[in-house]
Amino acid sequence: MKHYDKQDFPLDQIRRFLEPGPIVLVSSAHKGERNLMTMGWHMMLGFAPARFGCYLWEGNHSYELIRRSGQCAINLPTADMVDTVVGIGNSSGLDGDKFKRFGLTATKAAKVAAPLVAECCANFECVLADASQIERHGLFIWDVVKAHVAVSPKRPQTLHYRGDGEFMVSGPAISRKAKFLPGNL
Amino acid sequence: MKHYDKQDFPLDQIRRFLEPGPIVLVSSAHKGERNLMTMGWHMMLGFAPARFGCYLWEGNHSYELIRRSGQCAINLPTADMVDTVVGIGNSSGLDGDKFKRFGLTATKAAKVAAPLVAECCANFECVLADASQIERHGLFIWDVVKAHVAVSPKRPQTLHYRGDGEFMVSGPAISRKAKFLPGNL
Repeated sequence: MKHYDKQDFPLDQIRRFLEPGPIVLVSSAHKGERNLMTMGWHMMLGFAPARFGCYLWEGNHSYELIRRSGQCAINLPTADMVDTVVGIGNSSGLDGDKFKRFGLTATKAAKVAAPLVAECCANFECVLADASQIERHGLFIWDVVKAHVAVSPKRPQTLHYRGDGEFMVSGPAISRKAKFLPGNL
Repeated sequence: MKHYDKQDFPLDQIRRFLEPGPIVLVSSAHKGERNLMTMGWHMMLGFAPARFGCYLWEGNHSYELIRRSGQCAINLPTADMVDTVVGIGNSSGLDGDKFKRFGLTATKAAKVAAPLVAECCANFECVLADASQIERHGLFIWDVVKAHVAVSPKRPQTLHYRGDGEFMVSGPAISRKAKFLPGNL
Protein backbone atom coordinates (compact mmCIF):
# COMPACT_ATOMS: atom_id res chain seq x y z
CA MET A 1 0.00 0.00 0.00
CA LYS A 2 1.03 3.54 -0.72
CA HIS A 3 2.61 5.88 1.84
CA TYR A 4 1.73 9.52 1.36
CA ASP A 5 3.87 12.64 1.55
CA LYS A 6 2.05 14.71 4.10
CA GLN A 7 2.15 18.26 5.32
CA ASP A 8 0.83 20.05 8.38
CA PHE A 9 -2.72 21.09 7.71
CA PRO A 10 -4.62 23.99 9.32
CA LEU A 11 -6.75 22.64 12.16
CA ASP A 12 -9.63 24.97 11.42
CA GLN A 13 -9.98 23.37 7.96
CA ILE A 14 -10.01 19.68 8.87
CA ARG A 15 -13.79 19.64 8.30
CA ARG A 16 -12.82 19.32 4.63
CA PHE A 17 -12.01 15.67 5.31
CA LEU A 18 -14.20 14.79 8.28
CA GLU A 19 -17.52 16.54 7.61
CA PRO A 20 -18.35 14.42 4.52
CA GLY A 21 -18.68 11.44 6.89
CA PRO A 22 -15.94 8.95 5.92
CA ILE A 23 -15.13 5.71 7.67
CA VAL A 24 -11.93 6.24 9.64
CA LEU A 25 -9.39 4.11 11.46
CA VAL A 26 -8.84 5.03 15.10
CA SER A 27 -5.39 4.24 16.46
CA SER A 28 -4.53 4.20 20.13
CA ALA A 29 -1.72 3.30 22.53
CA HIS A 30 -1.56 2.81 26.27
CA LYS A 31 1.07 1.25 28.52
CA GLY A 32 2.94 -0.59 25.78
CA GLU A 33 -0.17 -1.79 23.95
CA ARG A 34 -1.51 -0.35 20.70
CA ASN A 35 -4.58 -0.98 18.61
CA LEU A 36 -6.56 0.04 15.57
CA MET A 37 -10.32 0.07 14.99
CA THR A 38 -12.77 1.04 12.26
CA MET A 39 -15.20 3.83 13.13
CA GLY A 40 -18.08 5.55 11.33
CA TRP A 41 -20.04 7.43 14.02
CA HIS A 42 -18.44 10.84 14.31
CA MET A 43 -18.99 14.53 13.73
CA MET A 44 -17.34 17.92 13.74
CA LEU A 45 -18.15 20.03 16.80
CA GLY A 46 -16.03 23.15 16.34
CA PHE A 47 -13.44 24.99 14.25
CA ALA A 48 -11.15 26.56 16.88
CA PRO A 49 -10.40 24.61 18.92
CA ALA A 50 -10.85 21.97 16.23
CA ARG A 51 -13.37 19.81 18.01
CA PHE A 52 -14.55 16.38 16.95
CA GLY A 53 -16.93 13.89 18.58
CA CYS A 54 -17.10 10.15 18.13
CA TYR A 55 -19.06 7.23 19.50
CA LEU A 56 -17.08 4.23 20.72
CA TRP A 57 -18.66 1.01 21.92
CA GLU A 58 -17.33 -0.22 25.23
CA GLY A 59 -17.11 -3.75 23.81
CA ASN A 60 -14.27 -2.73 21.51
CA HIS A 61 -10.79 -3.64 22.68
CA SER A 62 -9.67 -0.10 21.78
CA TYR A 63 -12.22 1.45 24.12
CA GLU A 64 -10.16 1.17 27.32
CA LEU A 65 -6.89 2.07 25.60
CA ILE A 66 -8.51 5.24 24.31
CA ARG A 67 -10.37 6.09 27.51
CA ARG A 68 -7.38 5.53 29.77
CA SER A 69 -4.84 7.31 27.59
CA GLY A 70 -7.23 10.17 26.75
CA GLN A 71 -5.68 10.22 23.28
CA CYS A 72 -6.13 8.75 19.83
CA ALA A 73 -5.39 9.41 16.19
CA ILE A 74 -8.03 9.50 13.47
CA ASN A 75 -6.63 8.08 10.23
CA LEU A 76 -8.40 8.52 6.90
CA PRO A 77 -8.24 5.48 4.59
CA THR A 78 -8.87 5.69 0.87
CA ALA A 79 -11.28 3.46 -1.04
CA ASP A 80 -8.54 1.13 -2.27
CA MET A 81 -8.04 0.13 1.39
CA VAL A 82 -11.58 -1.25 1.72
CA ASP A 83 -10.47 -4.82 2.50
CA THR A 84 -8.06 -3.55 5.16
CA VAL A 85 -10.82 -1.42 6.66
CA VAL A 86 -13.20 -4.39 6.76
CA GLY A 87 -10.51 -6.68 8.14
CA ILE A 88 -9.68 -4.26 10.95
CA GLY A 89 -13.37 -3.85 11.78
CA ASN A 90 -13.90 -7.60 11.92
CA SER A 91 -10.99 -8.58 14.12
CA SER A 92 -10.05 -7.85 17.70
CA GLY A 93 -6.90 -6.38 19.20
CA LEU A 94 -7.00 -9.40 21.50
CA ASP A 95 -5.93 -11.55 18.54
CA GLY A 96 -2.63 -9.76 18.02
CA ASP A 97 -1.24 -6.52 16.67
CA LYS A 98 -3.37 -5.20 13.81
CA PHE A 99 -0.58 -3.12 12.26
CA LYS A 100 1.41 -6.30 11.66
CA ARG A 101 -1.60 -8.39 10.71
CA PHE A 102 -2.75 -5.95 8.05
CA GLY A 103 0.68 -4.83 6.84
CA LEU A 104 0.32 -1.26 8.04
CA THR A 105 3.12 1.09 9.05
CA ALA A 106 2.91 2.83 12.41
CA THR A 107 4.61 6.21 12.43
CA LYS A 108 5.23 8.47 15.40
CA ALA A 109 2.76 11.22 16.14
CA ALA A 110 3.91 14.68 17.21
CA LYS A 111 1.65 15.28 20.20
CA VAL A 112 0.07 11.96 21.21
CA ALA A 113 1.31 8.46 21.98
CA ALA A 114 -1.11 6.84 19.49
CA PRO A 115 0.68 5.77 16.29
CA LEU A 116 -0.30 7.18 12.90
CA VAL A 117 -1.14 4.94 9.95
CA ALA A 118 1.30 5.86 7.18
CA GLU A 119 -0.92 4.25 4.52
CA CYS A 120 -3.79 6.63 5.31
CA CYS A 121 -3.99 9.92 3.40
CA ALA A 122 -4.62 12.02 6.51
CA ASN A 123 -3.95 11.66 10.24
CA PHE A 124 -5.49 13.74 12.97
CA GLU A 125 -3.96 13.68 16.46
CA CYS A 126 -6.58 14.00 19.19
CA VAL A 127 -6.58 14.79 22.90
CA LEU A 128 -9.68 14.17 24.98
CA ALA A 129 -11.45 17.49 25.63
CA ASP A 130 -14.52 16.26 27.52
CA ALA A 131 -14.98 12.82 29.07
CA SER A 132 -18.36 13.62 30.63
CA GLN A 133 -20.49 11.96 27.93
CA ILE A 134 -18.54 8.71 27.65
CA GLU A 135 -20.53 6.78 30.19
CA ARG A 136 -23.94 8.14 29.21
CA HIS A 137 -23.67 8.18 25.43
CA GLY A 138 -20.38 6.47 24.51
CA LEU A 139 -19.43 9.90 23.20
CA PHE A 140 -15.79 11.01 23.25
CA ILE A 141 -15.25 14.72 22.59
CA TRP A 142 -11.80 15.52 21.21
CA ASP A 143 -9.60 18.48 20.48
CA VAL A 144 -7.68 17.80 17.29
CA VAL A 145 -4.20 19.12 18.09
CA LYS A 146 -2.25 18.27 14.94
CA ALA A 147 -3.24 17.37 11.38
CA HIS A 148 -1.10 15.67 8.71
CA VAL A 149 -2.61 15.65 5.22
CA ALA A 150 -1.35 14.21 1.93
CA VAL A 151 -0.16 16.83 -0.56
CA SER A 152 -1.92 14.81 -3.26
CA PRO A 153 -4.67 13.82 -3.99
CA LYS A 154 -6.51 16.92 -2.82
CA ARG A 155 -9.82 15.04 -2.91
CA PRO A 156 -9.07 11.48 -1.79
CA GLN A 157 -11.65 8.83 -2.63
CA THR A 158 -13.12 7.91 0.74
CA LEU A 159 -15.39 5.14 2.07
CA HIS A 160 -18.73 5.90 3.72
CA TYR A 161 -20.50 3.08 5.51
CA ARG A 162 -24.20 2.34 4.93
CA GLY A 163 -24.47 -0.69 7.21
CA ASP A 164 -25.13 -4.24 6.07
CA GLY A 165 -21.58 -4.60 4.73
CA GLU A 166 -22.04 -1.88 2.12
CA PHE A 167 -19.95 1.21 1.51
CA MET A 168 -20.57 4.27 -0.61
CA VAL A 169 -17.41 5.47 -2.35
CA SER A 170 -17.10 9.25 -2.59
CA GLY A 171 -18.04 10.62 -6.00
CA PRO A 172 -17.51 13.84 -7.95
CA ALA A 173 -17.14 17.31 -6.47
CA ILE A 174 -19.40 20.23 -7.28
CA SER A 175 -18.77 23.78 -6.17
CA ARG A 176 -21.34 26.45 -5.43
CA LYS A 177 -18.86 28.79 -3.75
CA ALA A 178 -20.12 31.83 -5.64
CA LYS A 179 -23.59 31.34 -4.12
CA PHE A 180 -22.38 31.34 -0.49
CA LEU A 181 -22.35 34.31 1.81
CA PRO A 182 -18.68 34.70 2.87
CA GLY A 183 -19.44 33.95 6.53
CA ASN A 184 -21.23 30.73 5.58
CA LEU A 185 -18.44 28.97 3.72
CA MET B 1 -39.02 19.08 -7.83
CA LYS B 2 -40.04 15.50 -7.33
CA HIS B 3 -42.19 14.26 -4.46
CA TYR B 4 -41.36 10.73 -3.35
CA ASP B 5 -43.62 7.85 -2.42
CA LYS B 6 -42.43 6.96 1.04
CA GLN B 7 -42.91 4.13 3.47
CA ASP B 8 -42.29 3.68 7.16
CA PHE B 9 -38.72 2.60 7.65
CA PRO B 10 -37.28 0.60 10.57
CA LEU B 11 -35.71 3.00 13.05
CA ASP B 12 -32.82 0.66 13.84
CA GLN B 13 -31.73 0.87 10.18
CA ILE B 14 -31.74 4.63 9.60
CA ARG B 15 -27.93 4.61 9.81
CA ARG B 16 -28.13 3.47 6.19
CA PHE B 17 -28.92 7.08 5.27
CA LEU B 18 -27.33 9.10 8.05
CA GLU B 19 -24.02 7.35 8.77
CA PRO B 20 -22.51 8.18 5.34
CA GLY B 21 -22.55 11.85 6.41
CA PRO B 22 -24.94 13.68 4.07
CA ILE B 23 -25.94 17.31 4.25
CA VAL B 24 -29.50 17.44 5.60
CA LEU B 25 -32.26 20.00 5.96
CA VAL B 26 -33.54 20.48 9.50
CA SER B 27 -37.17 21.60 9.74
CA SER B 28 -38.73 22.99 12.89
CA ALA B 29 -41.91 24.62 14.17
CA HIS B 30 -42.77 26.48 17.34
CA LYS B 31 -45.73 28.70 18.27
CA GLY B 32 -46.95 29.27 14.73
CA GLU B 33 -43.50 29.81 13.24
CA ARG B 34 -41.60 27.30 11.11
CA ASN B 35 -38.16 27.22 9.57
CA LEU B 36 -35.68 25.20 7.59
CA MET B 37 -31.89 25.10 7.82
CA THR B 38 -28.98 23.27 6.20
CA MET B 39 -26.88 21.10 8.52
CA GLY B 40 -23.79 18.94 8.09
CA TRP B 41 -22.44 18.32 11.61
CA HIS B 42 -24.23 15.21 12.85
CA MET B 43 -23.69 11.58 13.84
CA MET B 44 -25.46 8.38 14.79
CA LEU B 45 -25.35 7.60 18.52
CA GLY B 46 -27.46 4.47 18.85
CA PHE B 47 -29.64 1.90 17.14
CA ALA B 48 -32.47 1.32 19.66
CA PRO B 49 -33.53 3.87 20.63
CA ALA B 50 -32.47 5.32 17.29
CA ARG B 51 -30.26 8.09 18.58
CA PHE B 52 -28.78 10.91 16.56
CA GLY B 53 -26.67 13.91 17.57
CA CYS B 54 -26.26 17.23 15.78
CA TYR B 55 -24.50 20.51 16.30
CA LEU B 56 -26.55 23.67 15.90
CA TRP B 57 -25.11 27.15 16.08
CA GLU B 58 -27.00 29.50 18.35
CA GLY B 59 -26.82 32.22 15.70
CA ASN B 60 -29.17 30.29 13.44
CA HIS B 61 -32.78 31.45 13.46
CA SER B 62 -33.83 27.79 13.76
CA TYR B 63 -31.86 27.33 16.97
CA GLU B 64 -34.49 28.72 19.34
CA LEU B 65 -37.40 27.10 17.48
CA ILE B 66 -35.67 23.75 17.84
CA ARG B 67 -34.52 24.25 21.41
CA ARG B 68 -37.86 25.52 22.67
CA SER B 69 -40.00 22.93 20.88
CA GLY B 70 -37.61 20.07 21.65
CA GLN B 71 -38.45 18.65 18.24
CA CYS B 72 -37.28 18.73 14.65
CA ALA B 73 -37.31 16.71 11.45
CA ILE B 74 -34.19 15.72 9.55
CA ASN B 75 -34.87 15.75 5.81
CA LEU B 76 -32.50 14.14 3.30
CA PRO B 77 -32.09 16.09 0.04
CA THR B 78 -30.74 14.52 -3.13
CA ALA B 79 -27.92 15.96 -5.22
CA ASP B 80 -30.28 17.54 -7.77
CA MET B 81 -31.43 19.83 -4.91
CA VAL B 82 -27.98 21.37 -4.45
CA ASP B 83 -29.08 24.91 -5.29
CA THR B 84 -32.02 24.66 -2.89
CA VAL B 85 -29.68 23.35 -0.17
CA VAL B 86 -27.25 26.22 -0.74
CA GLY B 87 -30.08 28.76 -0.90
CA ILE B 88 -31.53 27.55 2.40
CA GLY B 89 -28.10 27.62 4.02
CA ASN B 90 -27.46 31.16 2.87
CA SER B 91 -30.71 32.81 3.90
CA SER B 92 -32.37 33.45 7.23
CA GLY B 93 -35.80 32.53 8.52
CA LEU B 94 -36.03 36.19 9.49
CA ASP B 95 -36.42 37.03 5.79
CA GLY B 96 -39.63 35.04 5.32
CA ASP B 97 -40.83 31.46 5.06
CA LYS B 98 -38.25 29.26 3.39
CA PHE B 99 -40.75 26.66 2.23
CA LYS B 100 -42.46 29.31 0.08
CA ARG B 101 -39.24 30.99 -0.96
CA PHE B 102 -37.69 27.76 -2.22
CA GLY B 103 -40.87 26.14 -3.57
CA LEU B 104 -40.88 23.30 -1.06
CA THR B 105 -43.91 21.40 0.18
CA ALA B 106 -44.45 21.07 3.93
CA THR B 107 -46.26 17.87 4.88
CA LYS B 108 -47.54 16.89 8.29
CA ALA B 109 -45.37 14.71 10.48
CA ALA B 110 -46.83 11.86 12.54
CA LYS B 111 -45.23 12.53 15.91
CA VAL B 112 -43.75 16.02 15.88
CA ALA B 113 -44.97 19.52 15.01
CA ALA B 114 -42.06 20.16 12.63
CA PRO B 115 -43.14 19.89 8.99
CA LEU B 116 -41.58 17.34 6.64
CA VAL B 117 -40.07 18.35 3.29
CA ALA B 118 -41.96 16.36 0.63
CA GLU B 119 -39.20 16.91 -1.94
CA CYS B 120 -36.63 15.12 0.24
CA CYS B 121 -36.20 11.37 -0.22
CA ALA B 122 -36.28 10.61 3.52
CA ASN B 123 -37.66 12.33 6.62
CA PHE B 124 -36.75 11.49 10.19
CA GLU B 125 -38.94 12.80 13.01
CA CYS B 126 -36.92 13.64 16.13
CA VAL B 127 -37.68 14.32 19.78
CA LEU B 128 -35.02 15.79 22.05
CA ALA B 129 -33.55 13.04 24.24
CA ASP B 130 -30.88 15.00 26.09
CA ALA B 131 -30.59 18.78 26.28
CA SER B 132 -27.62 18.76 28.66
CA GLN B 133 -24.94 19.36 26.02
CA ILE B 134 -26.66 22.19 24.15
CA GLU B 135 -25.13 25.02 26.11
CA ARG B 136 -21.64 23.51 26.42
CA HIS B 137 -21.17 22.04 22.94
CA GLY B 138 -24.15 23.15 20.82
CA LEU B 139 -24.96 19.45 20.74
CA PHE B 140 -28.58 18.30 20.48
CA ILE B 141 -29.12 14.59 21.18
CA TRP B 142 -32.26 13.20 19.56
CA ASP B 143 -34.38 10.10 19.58
CA VAL B 144 -35.61 9.46 16.06
CA VAL B 145 -39.23 8.40 16.60
CA LYS B 146 -40.48 7.93 13.03
CA ALA B 147 -38.78 7.45 9.66
CA HIS B 148 -40.28 7.92 6.21
CA VAL B 149 -38.12 6.70 3.33
CA ALA B 150 -38.67 6.74 -0.45
CA VAL B 151 -39.42 3.33 -1.95
CA SER B 152 -37.08 4.25 -4.81
CA PRO B 153 -34.21 5.00 -5.30
CA LYS B 154 -32.75 2.66 -2.70
CA ARG B 155 -29.43 4.48 -2.84
CA PRO B 156 -30.25 8.15 -3.32
CA GLN B 157 -27.48 10.39 -4.58
CA THR B 158 -26.64 12.58 -1.59
CA LEU B 159 -24.57 15.73 -0.97
CA HIS B 160 -21.64 15.78 1.47
CA TYR B 161 -20.16 19.13 2.36
CA ARG B 162 -16.39 19.75 2.30
CA GLY B 163 -16.45 23.43 3.26
CA ASP B 164 -15.44 26.32 1.02
CA GLY B 165 -18.64 25.99 -1.02
CA GLU B 166 -17.78 22.51 -2.27
CA PHE B 167 -19.84 19.33 -2.07
CA MET B 168 -18.93 15.72 -2.69
CA VAL B 169 -21.73 13.83 -4.45
CA SER B 170 -22.13 10.23 -3.31
CA GLY B 171 -20.61 7.72 -5.70
CA PRO B 172 -20.86 3.99 -6.37
CA ALA B 173 -21.66 1.32 -3.79
CA ILE B 174 -19.37 -1.59 -2.97
CA SER B 175 -20.36 -4.49 -0.75
CA ARG B 176 -18.09 -6.59 1.44
CA LYS B 177 -20.95 -8.22 3.36
CA ALA B 178 -19.45 -11.70 3.04
CA LYS B 179 -16.34 -10.54 4.91
CA PHE B 180 -18.22 -9.21 7.96
CA LEU B 181 -18.82 -11.09 11.17
CA PRO B 182 -22.64 -11.18 11.53
CA GLY B 183 -22.59 -9.07 14.72
CA ASN B 184 -20.52 -6.36 13.00
CA LEU B 185 -22.83 -5.57 10.09
